[in-house]
Amino acid sequence: MAENVNTDINLDEYPHINKGLAGIVAFTTNKSFIDGQKGELIYAGYDIDTLAEKASFEEVCFLLWNDRLPNQSELDELNTKLQNSRSLPEPVLTYLKSTSKNAEPMAVLRTAISMLGDFHEVQADSSEEFRINKAISITAKMPTIIAAFDRSRNDKNIVEPLDEKSTAYNFLYMLNDEEPGEQAEKTMDLCLILHAEHGMNASTFTNRAICSTESDMYSSVTGAIGALKGPLHGGANQQVMNMLLDIDEKDADPVEYVKGRLERKEKVMGFGHRVYKTMDPRARILRSMSKKLSEETGHKELNKWSEAILRTMKDEKDIDPNVDFFSATVYYSMGIKPDLFTCIFSMSRVSGWTGHYIEQAENNRLVRPRALFIGDKHRDWVPLEER
Amino acid sequence: MAENVNTDINLDEYPHINKGLAGIVAFTTNKSFIDGQKGELIYAGYDIDTLAEKASFEEVCFLLWNDRLPNQSELDELNTKLQNSRSLPEPVLTYLKSTSKNAEPMAVLRTAISMLGDFHEVQADSSEEFRINKAISITAKMPTIIAAFDRSRNDKNIVEPLDEKSTAYNFLYMLNDEEPGEQAEKTMDLCLILHAEHGMNASTFTNRAICSTESDMYSSVTGAIGALKGPLHGGANQQVMNMLLDIDEKDADPVEYVKGRLERKEKVMGFGHRVYKTMDPRARILRSMSKKLSEETGHKELNKWSEAILRTMKDEKDIDPNVDFFSATVYYSMGIKPDLFTCIFSMSRVSGWTGHYIEQAENNRLVRPRALFIGDKHRDWVPLEER
Repeated sequence: MAENVNTDINLDEYPHINKGLAGIVAFTTNKSFIDGQKGELIYAGYDIDTLAEKASFEEVCFLLWNDRLPNQSELDELNTKLQNSRSLPEPVLTYLKSTSKNAEPMAVLRTAISMLGDFHEVQADSSEEFRINKAISITAKMPTIIAAFDRSRNDKNIVEPLDEKSTAYNFLYMLNDEEPGEQAEKTMDLCLILHAEHGMNASTFTNRAICSTESDMYSSVTGAIGALKGPLHGGANQQVMNMLLDIDEKDADPVEYVKGRLERKEKVMGFGHRVYKTMDPRARILRSMSKKLSEETGHKELNKWSEAILRTMKDEKDIDPNVDFFSATVYYSMGIKPDLFTCIFSMSRVSGWTGHYIEQAENNRLVRPRALFIGDKHRDWVPLEER
Repeated sequence: MAENVNTDINLDEYPHINKGLAGIVAFTTNKSFIDGQKGELIYAGYDIDTLAEKASFEEVCFLLWNDRLPNQSELDELNTKLQNSRSLPEPVLTYLKSTSKNAEPMAVLRTAISMLGDFHEVQADSSEEFRINKAISITAKMPTIIAAFDRSRNDKNIVEPLDEKSTAYNFLYMLNDEEPGEQAEKTMDLCLILHAEHGMNASTFTNRAICSTESDMYSSVTGAIGALKGPLHGGANQQVMNMLLDIDEKDADPVEYVKGRLERKEKVMGFGHRVYKTMDPRARILRSMSKKLSEETGHKELNKWSEAILRTMKDEKDIDPNVDFFSATVYYSMGIKPDLFTCIFSMSRVSGWTGHYIEQAENNRLVRPRALFIGDKHRDWVPLEER
C-alpha cells in the first residue's frame, strides 16, 4: 500500500488528470479511422469489408507502409522481399530451440524480435525506404519465429519457409509441416487482414512512444509485443477460448455459465470495447466465418455456444462481442493452440505497428506526458539506525 | 511521403491535439516530484541532494518500491534477496556469450531481460509482494547482464558476482574482474542514485503503458529499455562523450567546436530539458564529482572542456546542461566505454520503472489515447490489374 500520500492534495482541483489518456488526441494519422458509433473501420481510406473481400494481407501491408495500394510490380517486389526475409539468423533459431518449453509464446516472440536487432542495422534516423525495408524484414520473420518455437517445444522438426507462397500459407505450412488447403490459407489471410491495424490501441501507442525517442524499430516492435501480451489487450482471445474449453470440460450450459460469471461479477472475455458502441465490424466478418468453419471442421458445438453467449450478453448487459470473441473459435477450428492466438495477432498487427513507426519517424515529437505527484514533498531524513 | 492526406481537414478546428502529450497529466504518482523552475528533484519525499549524500542505491530502491525508507532488518533482507538474484539462467548466459560482438549493448540488455521472462513466473495480476520480488530479481540481474556481455564481446572470462557486496561494487567488479576501490564504488553508487527515478519520462511512461494492459514486468522493463535506447532519451550521454572524444581526436578548441555546431544548426548533446528551466540538480551534483574525478584520474582535460562547453552554451543559447552532460565524463573517467553509458542508466532507472509498475498495477487503467485520422475516408477500390 502506498504510504506516502499527501492528504492535503485535493484532486478535484486538478481537472486535467487524464487517466488512461482516454479521449486525449496524441497524434495525427493516415493509417486508420474508426467510427465507433457506426461500427466502421477504415485502413488508409479503404473500409474493412472491402479489404476483407478483395485484398491480400501483403497488399494491406503495402497500404499501411505507403498509404496507397501497390500496382502489380510493386506487389511482386514486396512479395520477393518478404520471401527473402523469412529465414532467421542462426542464434535466433538456437534460442528458439533451447529456451524453456514452458515459456509463454508471446514472451518468446518478444525476445526473438529483440534479438534480431543484434544482427541487423538498426538506426532509426534514416530514410523512409530504410524503414519500410526494416518493416518488411520484421513482418516476414514473425510467422517463422512463432512456428519454430511451437514445433520445437513439441519436439518436432523446424520447417523452412517455402518461396513464392503467401505469409498466411507459410505460417500454416511451417506450423504444421503440411501444405494448407486453399480455404485454410484464405481464412488465415483474412484473419491477418482484420487484425492489421486499429488506431491508437495500447500496443500501437507503446510502439509510437518508443519510436519517439528515435529508438529503432526492433525496440518499438518488441515493446508493442509486450503491451499486446497483456490480458486487457491482445491476451483476450486466448481467454475467450479458455472459457469455451472450460464450458466443454465442465459439460456446462453456456447460457447458465455466462450468467453465473455475470452474477459473480467475473469478466466475460471478448465483449465490449472502449471505442465501438455497436458490433465491431471485424467481429461481424469473423462471426460468419466462424459459422462456416465450424460446420466444415466439425466444431459445430463451439459455434452454437458462441452464438448463445452472444445473445446472453446482449440480453443481460447490452454489450456486443469484439474482434477477440470470434477470432478465438476461428483459430481453434483451424487446429491452432490457444496460447498461440495472441502471437497470430502480433504477426498481423506488426504491419500496423511498423506503419505507425514510419509515420511517427517522419513527423516526430518525443512522447512525454506528466504525472501529478500526490505524496509529501518534504519528509525528514532519519538515519538508518534510528528507523 | 504520406499520400493520403485529406486537405479538407482544418487542424485548427481540433484544439486538443496534444503532440508528444506535452503538459498532459496522465497519472498520479508517489514516486517523484520535479520542480523545473527551482531545479528541484524529490524521490518519494526526499530531495536528491539528501539522498545523494546519505542514502545507498539499495535504500533508494526500497524507497521507490515501498514509498518509505527501510529499517536495518528490511535493508538486510533486501540485500540478501539482491545477492541471491544476481546470477543468470544458463540460456541467458549462452546468449550473451554467443550473440554478435557488434550488437549494441542496449539491444543485448533488452533481449536478455526479455529472455528472463522465459524462466520465471510472470503473471502481473498478483500481489504487491510478488511484484516487489520481481523488481528485486530484475534489478539484481541488470549489472550481471551488462558486465557479462561487455567481457564476452572482448573475449574475456565472465566474472561471477560476489556476495555481501553492493550493486555498485558488483557491477564494477564483474566488469573489470578487479575489486573496485572505495571511491569508485561510492561514485558508481551515487550515479545509480541520481538516475533512479525522474517522473514521467518516455521510458517510464512506456513501462506504465505496457503495465496498463496487465502485461508482466519483463514486458514493461523490456519496452522501457527500448525507449531509453533512443538518442532523444537515454542515448544522449553516449553522444556527449562521442562529442568530447571527437574534440580530442580533431585536437579542436572546444569553444570553437561548439560554436561551429550551433552555427551549422547541429545539436549539442547534453543540454536543455523539457522540464528543467534552470540547472538540473543532478547535473549540479555530477559536475562537482566530475571535477574531483577528473583530477584524481588524470582526465583533467575532459573536465576543462566540459566547463568551457557549459559556459559557451550558457552565453550563446542560455541553456543549462542536463544529467547526461556530466554523467558522460564521470563514467569515462571511471574507465567505462561510452556504448555502456545508457546501460548504466538502465541499471539504475530499472528501480524507478519497476516502482511505477507497482504503482500502476495497484490502480490501473488501460492507457489508450486517440489519434486524429487526417486521410481520406473513402477511396475507391481499384483492382490490382488496373492500378
